[in-house]
Amino acid sequence: MVPFSVTVLGAGSATPTLERYPASQVVNFNEQIFLVDCGEGTQINLRKYHIRFQRINHIFISHLHGDHFYGLPGLISTMDLLGRKNPLHIYCPGHLEEIIDIMFNRSQVVLDFPLQFHPLGFFGSDKVGSLPTEQAGASGGKETLYENDRIFIESFPLKHRIECWGFIFSEKPPLHNIRKEVIEQYSLSFKDIATIKKGSDLQTADGTTVPNRELTLPAHSPRRYIYCTDTVYDESLIPFLRKSDLLYHDSTFANDKSSRARETFHSTAEEAGYIAKHAEVRKLLLGHFSSRYNDLSILLQEARQVFPETDIAEEGKTYPVGF
Amino acid sequence: MVPFSVTVLGAGSATPTLERYPASQVVNFNEQIFLVDCGEGTQINLRKYHIRFQRINHIFISHLHGDHFYGLPGLISTMDLLGRKNPLHIYCPGHLEEIIDIMFNRSQVVLDFPLQFHPLGFFGSDKVGSLPTEQAGASGGKETLYENDRIFIESFPLKHRIECWGFIFSEKPPLHNIRKEVIEQYSLSFKDIATIKKGSDLQTADGTTVPNRELTLPAHSPRRYIYCTDTVYDESLIPFLRKSDLLYHDSTFANDKSSRARETFHSTAEEAGYIAKHAEVRKLLLGHFSSRYNDLSILLQEARQVFPETDIAEEGKTYPVGF
Repeated sequence: MVPFSVTVLGAGSATPTLERYPASQVVNFNEQIFLVDCGEGTQINLRKYHIRFQRINHIFISHLHGDHFYGLPGLISTMDLLGRKNPLHIYCPGHLEEIIDIMFNRSQVVLDFPLQFHPLGFFGSDKVGSLPTEQAGASGGKETLYENDRIFIESFPLKHRIECWGFIFSEKPPLHNIRKEVIEQYSLSFKDIATIKKGSDLQTADGTTVPNRELTLPAHSPRRYIYCTDTVYDESLIPFLRKSDLLYHDSTFANDKSSRARETFHSTAEEAGYIAKHAEVRKLLLGHFSSRYNDLSILLQEARQVFPETDIAEEGKTYPVGF
Repeated sequence: MVPFSVTVLGAGSATPTLERYPASQVVNFNEQIFLVDCGEGTQINLRKYHIRFQRINHIFISHLHGDHFYGLPGLISTMDLLGRKNPLHIYCPGHLEEIIDIMFNRSQVVLDFPLQFHPLGFFGSDKVGSLPTEQAGASGGKETLYENDRIFIESFPLKHRIECWGFIFSEKPPLHNIRKEVIEQYSLSFKDIATIKKGSDLQTADGTTVPNRELTLPAHSPRRYIYCTDTVYDESLIPFLRKSDLLYHDSTFANDKSSRARETFHSTAEEAGYIAKHAEVRKLLLGHFSSRYNDLSILLQEARQVFPETDIAEEGKTYPVGF
């Protein structure tokens, strides 16, 4: 089973503190590193947690509030100064390209590597940005952003004050594990093995069919991680989240500030718990904490009353996706 | 004598490391706090070194390389989220207003306090930005940016790859100290005292003139701090720096990289020493170190061979201006 995990770089929200950086995390799938959001200080935390910048080829930015992208210009500059040549793909609301372009243009920075922006959204980037999020979301579904033979990554619309997106990291159905003893028993060729691992039955020389289930061990279920911040409590998200192995969900406030959560289009920890419960996820990770909470145990407690399989996202800590 | 000091928040250059943040420092004059440059992470370091954000009303940005301003959007946002109402003045190359405007506009951020940009430069901001720095500097002199009854702050042009400015913080000639015994001796009124402290002689009732020097103790010489980064070695700066109490000067490289210094329009530590020596400053502070130097002692040593009164700018440390 290839590695699949999430390392939290920043679990804070709009005002960073000494204890909590703004939003950023890395998803490691099979040693391929994806960066999700990039608040101020992300490049410092990448160093702190020994994650090599240049291994990042794909960055996903949920929305254009500063705590989710103010670290991006600095990270790109540093990648360039350290000699990067490989393309960097950025999946983001369309206006980010305009912002980065003007910043580099005014600094007379010319990058030595290609920066490829992939604007999110079904209306095209300009239109989504100028529409109420509800409208953007109403007709929006999932959109595949990246795919290789083992993983695919999709976006889905969130309800926040501005255009905002969640991201789904889905392992593709893994190949079956072949039983070692059958290789010798049937003198299987490499080609036979590859076909069987994909799920085929075996036709032997004497015309017998050996069913796949007798040749293989069941592979694990494909794993799924979902990044879901920032969002108001929104039950229409549940279909996107269903039965995922790990869900990171906006938990900006505790119940004492539930009206503030609604006003600012954020969620409480308890609301994150309800979403996790109804979506039947395996594990919930709370994040995007307001700086007003020094002690996060109240958020954990309120979420666990609804959904016991809940943890607090701790900066520098790595969480496995699935088991 | 009112306090006058510099606290270094970041003494690194383009690529931040765990040990060294990009450019930023605060100048404290009489408990008025001025921020000079604002690299990524400045707001974190303001917290770390217990400097209250909202006391900053004036920010000076030397130029638009990212290591000098990428922390500014986040700092402004945080000031706003923490309830700021007072105006914030930003002295900077003209294009910075355009950059900040577009970032806040695309995030739909509307600040609750006035943000007042003061573009630097004699040609107007657009023109300076598009001219070779030499030309901008050639006809450029000092420009007063801010003034109150005790201090004035000026800009002067530096030779760097893009439009770039140094800043001069000059104490105004301090009031004379009145001798306590003369107050009673001549029955001085508050008005008399104020006039004498400004340097006037005293006319007594019997028509005698008492010269000021008999009434007062000499005040200290006005103190001066100069921030001079980023710049190539440039003797034409010396007239701007002459006899200042403290000079912070670009020292990106040691002598092993002197050709790299010229190519990138930076200085070596030894060159900073020569400038300090010829300008007859009292103390030199080296800064803007390349991340290639983990151990800065070679830079200190090379500068001290030319100018012994040299120190390394250490993050979190406060340096007095004058004595």
